Amino acid sequence: MKLYSYFRSSAAYRVRIALNVKAIDYDTAFINLKQGEQSTPEWLAVNPEGLVPVLEVSTTEKLTQSVAILEWIEETYPQPALLPDSGHERAQVRSMVGQIACDIHPLNNLRTLKYLTGDLHVTEENKLNWYRHWINTGFTAFEKKLVGGLFCFGEQITLADVCLIPQVYNAIRFNVDLTPYPFIEKVYQHCMSLAVFIDASPEQQPDAIL
Amino acid sequence: MKLYSYFRSSAAYRVRIALNVKAIDYDTAFINLKQGEQSTPEWLAVNPEGLVPVLEVSTTEKLTQSVAILEWIEETYPQPALLPDSGHERAQVRSMVGQIACDIHPLNNLRTLKYLTGDLHVTEENKLNWYRHWINTGFTAFEKKLVGGLFCFGEQITLADVCLIPQVYNAIRFNVDLTPYPFIEKVYQHCMSLAVFIDASPEQQPDAIL
Repeated sequence: MKLYSYFRSSAAYRVRIALNVKAIDYDTAFINLKQGEQSTPEWLAVNPEGLVPVLEVSTTEKLTQSVAILEWIEETYPQPALLPDSGHERAQVRSMVGQIACDIHPLNNLRTLKYLTGDLHVTEENKLNWYRHWINTGFTAFEKKLVGGLFCFGEQITLADVCLIPQVYNAIRFNVDLTPYPFIEKVYQHCMSLAVFIDASPEQQPDAIL
Repeated sequence: MKLYSYFRSSAAYRVRIALNVKAIDYDTAFINLKQGEQSTPEWLAVNPEGLVPVLEVSTTEKLTQSVAILEWIEETYPQPALLPDSGHERAQVRSMVGQIACDIHPLNNLRTLKYLTGDLHVTEENKLNWYRHWINTGFTAFEKKLVGGLFCFGEQITLADVCLIPQVYNAIRFNVDLTPYPFIEKVYQHCMSLAVFIDASPEQQPDAIL
């Protein structure tokens, strides 16, 4: 199995955490998003979406879109489970996944911010306002779903933590004040004490330039 | 079961299609996004995310986030299936879901466009450029995943169609030229000949103001 990754990509970071939780061995290849390697003809031949992550699971099978990859990992390697058993609880965890993966991250990722300051001539200050607005809107709602546990849902790591931690990492990088979100911060601190999260973090990646 | 919906919400539209495919009876309630009903204290007490859809499946269970709701519907009412059987094929369909639900829709929905023209003072023309940019970026990649069939994946409706059709409806409303996407257009035309899609369309909803 080979993961095409970029150290700072939140979506790739999610997949790295899930692979670690499942103790799956994998190779890596790096696509430097900052240098535009995602838009080269070579990479578009691999993934026409021009994004990372891609998980190559066989010579003919390449999976794209981080949430689809997370679901594939969960179905293919069921233990330890990253989704609860009951239907309603699974929906709650997947709702948290959607809150991060649909309602926060796409608005704040690199290509979106570049389009704002580039084609739309938005100022650097307004770009940061935009960034923080979507983080604060999303985290305010997310915080209300938490109950002060060590993880987002119950006492086990779920896909909700897998998605939340990279988003918090990103928010900290953009100097977002996390004081209004004590439950989110508690989950973040706890997860960042665990090897499966630490080893997946951007600083620990071979392509990290910090 | 009760669906909290808004006729023009693409995310609610997805859920309406899935409920129709599964032939599930449901009641409806309407949250007028244009009039800001999603931000009232009453609605935030129901859904702190301030969004639709919400699917109330019992007096104590309310599901949020359309993709999480779609997965719940699929798990709870497995027939007719909206995901293929094999793991790799499921990942391909879910990847298409992610392409729409993460990479296009969040950038182009009502609250995002309002923030652009409001707080960021982006012109109406640049708002439309932004809209079309993300549609064209997303549809260009999506088109390459299609092979010219009646549906997005194989000869059955899947969650990919459930997500694509509302996005195409939305693109048409914003006068996006679909000529570069003949496979997407073919899927759209075919789906829009089927009752499960027609009955879910915005025009057919009791709250429609066109």
